[in-house]
Amino acid sequence: MKDVTNLDDYEVGFDIPAAIGMDEADIQTPCLVLDLDALERNIEKMGDYAKAHGMRHRVHGKMHKSVDVAKLQEELGGAVGVCCQKVSEAEVFARGGIKDVLVSNQVRDPQKIDRLARLPKLGARTIVCVDDIDNVAELSEAAQKHGTQIECFVEIDCGAGRCGVTTTEDVVKIAKAIEAAEGLKFTGIQAYQGAMQHLDSYEARKEKLDVAIAMVKDAVEGLKAEGIECELVSGGGTGSYYFESNSGVYNELQCGSYAFMDADYGRILDKDGKRIDQGEWENAFFILTQVMSHAKADKAICDAGLKAQSVDSGLPVIFGRDDVEYVKCSDEHGVIADPKGVLKVGDKLKLVPGHCDPTANVHDWYVGVRNGKVEALWPVSARGRAY
Amino acid sequence: MKDVTNLDDYEVGFDIPAAIGMDEADIQTPCLVLDLDALERNIEKMGDYAKAHGMRHRVHGKMHKSVDVAKLQEELGGAVGVCCQKVSEAEVFARGGIKDVLVSNQVRDPQKIDRLARLPKLGARTIVCVDDIDNVAELSEAAQKHGTQIECFVEIDCGAGRCGVTTTEDVVKIAKAIEAAEGLKFTGIQAYQGAMQHLDSYEARKEKLDVAIAMVKDAVEGLKAEGIECELVSGGGTGSYYFESNSGVYNELQCGSYAFMDADYGRILDKDGKRIDQGEWENAFFILTQVMSHAKADKAICDAGLKAQSVDSGLPVIFGRDDVEYVKCSDEHGVIADPKGVLKVGDKLKLVPGHCDPTANVHDWYVGVRNGKVEALWPVSARGRAY
Repeated sequence: MKDVTNLDDYEVGFDIPAAIGMDEADIQTPCLVLDLDALERNIEKMGDYAKAHGMRHRVHGKMHKSVDVAKLQEELGGAVGVCCQKVSEAEVFARGGIKDVLVSNQVRDPQKIDRLARLPKLGARTIVCVDDIDNVAELSEAAQKHGTQIECFVEIDCGAGRCGVTTTEDVVKIAKAIEAAEGLKFTGIQAYQGAMQHLDSYEARKEKLDVAIAMVKDAVEGLKAEGIECELVSGGGTGSYYFESNSGVYNELQCGSYAFMDADYGRILDKDGKRIDQGEWENAFFILTQVMSHAKADKAICDAGLKAQSVDSGLPVIFGRDDVEYVKCSDEHGVIADPKGVLKVGDKLKLVPGHCDPTANVHDWYVGVRNGKVEALWPVSARGRAY
Repeated sequence: MKDVTNLDDYEVGFDIPAAIGMDEADIQTPCLVLDLDALERNIEKMGDYAKAHGMRHRVHGKMHKSVDVAKLQEELGGAVGVCCQKVSEAEVFARGGIKDVLVSNQVRDPQKIDRLARLPKLGARTIVCVDDIDNVAELSEAAQKHGTQIECFVEIDCGAGRCGVTTTEDVVKIAKAIEAAEGLKFTGIQAYQGAMQHLDSYEARKEKLDVAIAMVKDAVEGLKAEGIECELVSGGGTGSYYFESNSGVYNELQCGSYAFMDADYGRILDKDGKRIDQGEWENAFFILTQVMSHAKADKAICDAGLKAQSVDSGLPVIFGRDDVEYVKCSDEHGVIADPKGVLKVGDKLKLVPGHCDPTANVHDWYVGVRNGKVEALWPVSARGRAY
């Protein structure tokens, strides 16, 4: 492993898939390619939306795990900072210069809590989620030890069925404990409905979010009755941000996938019944792959399999082609149905992966492309930071 | 990124999940843990089997992507070298000191062919698979350019439906072209039946392998009729090695998963109808995870989701427990059904992942454990080398 700040140390093909300035045609496959024009348009569009609706946008950094993309989201999209899911990711973003970092997850391991409490020393406002009153004393002790402040969101499980409390009574109880704890500050509520984001129908998503919004409103009112104000009420993803933005109770969004898009999100429908990858967002994120065998007339084998993507949300889609189809994924190979035999060995194809987050997490680099040239080579800065 | 040869530079919890000498209880989650005793027993057992059956064992390095594990397989299991699927993996193994490296795949990109042709200069015997006569001239040109020799296997598609030719006529034609080409040597046949390895029934696997063996025998005889000898006939995986070993035609095995085991392989049955993870092989490979939330009485949330594993072959199984079950996997979370509420926040569990190869590929480190202590910390040397 070499110093990532000096790309001259890197060997194209071994360490990195491309070099800056290279023709797009020479990029080594398989690798991640970003269409920089599309990426920038997505980022600006969501930034404009958030601004027009008076919402803060805390972009979800766990999607791309990239300090460079997060900074672009701050510069072009007015993002206020990031959320991420792990302390190690938060460390990467804080070390990279992001000044407002939410770990939108529970932190319970003593060593991780200690590292969380040191994050403000890197210059980052540090917020974490809490769903258990026992966690309050643990966080408080660490903050006092390091002389820092940890801000806390109480997390509401508003339908995802993972972490989070489910009653206003529990929200109030934990918020009070946070308010009373040395070194901690109660900042608001985390209420991200993750389970509904990928429901195809707009109405089905709205129905789920209506429930979430009602829970959050009840919690905010319950807190108010006890004299506790929520500075931030945070949540919202690519499949729901319009509901939170118009709820009158959320004031912070946490969208991630809008910037890259993927095949699974692309299939969901907007309120007019149109796929969101056909107008709302552009595909900016691809796996570049190459045909490496065509020993059977109707079948091409490409070099992007399970080591180049996650198929948890389905197989990738070949971008811009309806004459060929990615039909099977094994460790190192993708099988492409090529009924008319139009592909040749060496042909390159752009795949839209099923799920962008875990696909980004298997790669070390983003190759940013514009006008046929490699313009950027960004490390997937927090890749593998799962601790 | 820092020098991996100097572990003192690494910070536990940020760069690495554990330090050598640490108690097993202090390992940071989620991470990969190897039970070194079980790993060594698996490696020795397969080594003994291969030796007793007069088979060379070229271990599949793409499974673990680790120079350290490959060297253990050479030392304890008498492995003759490795196979792997990508030129970049081959470079990692050759640079790491492995002296016999097969890229058990097609190499067609001009830059990759050039790198392949330089591999012998690293001291490694270099073999590659060919399934298209046009590839012969490409490989020959590169070998001549670098003054090296590339050995070639003709690949037969014996049922996996990916790369490889399907007729003896094509095998002979390509072998003759290789024999005639400067800088190349025809070394034998690659015939790995990947599609049958995970069929549960021994008889179903045998039926598929019988077809493969018949194809390979026909090809070897067809070559012999033309005066061409096969030095090596290579193939065989964890679900089939006994068939190839007793075929009378294969002389080299390519097993990978036997060393680690996983949940999907574990389910297949031996000839007595017994699961292969209950006697034939031991689970040596785990994702260590920790409970981070238990806000609902019957559900624990752990910290190993899609960023810590691949679920292409099903969800992980919780090792040694039948009172709790991993029932859902999202990006950062695993949902564990805990009907009796036996788990507590902070509890650690060992998960047997569904599929070892792509799971290893999302992690940077193996934590080797023996007698409750961390004994080894090995980089996943070729992680992310997908080019």
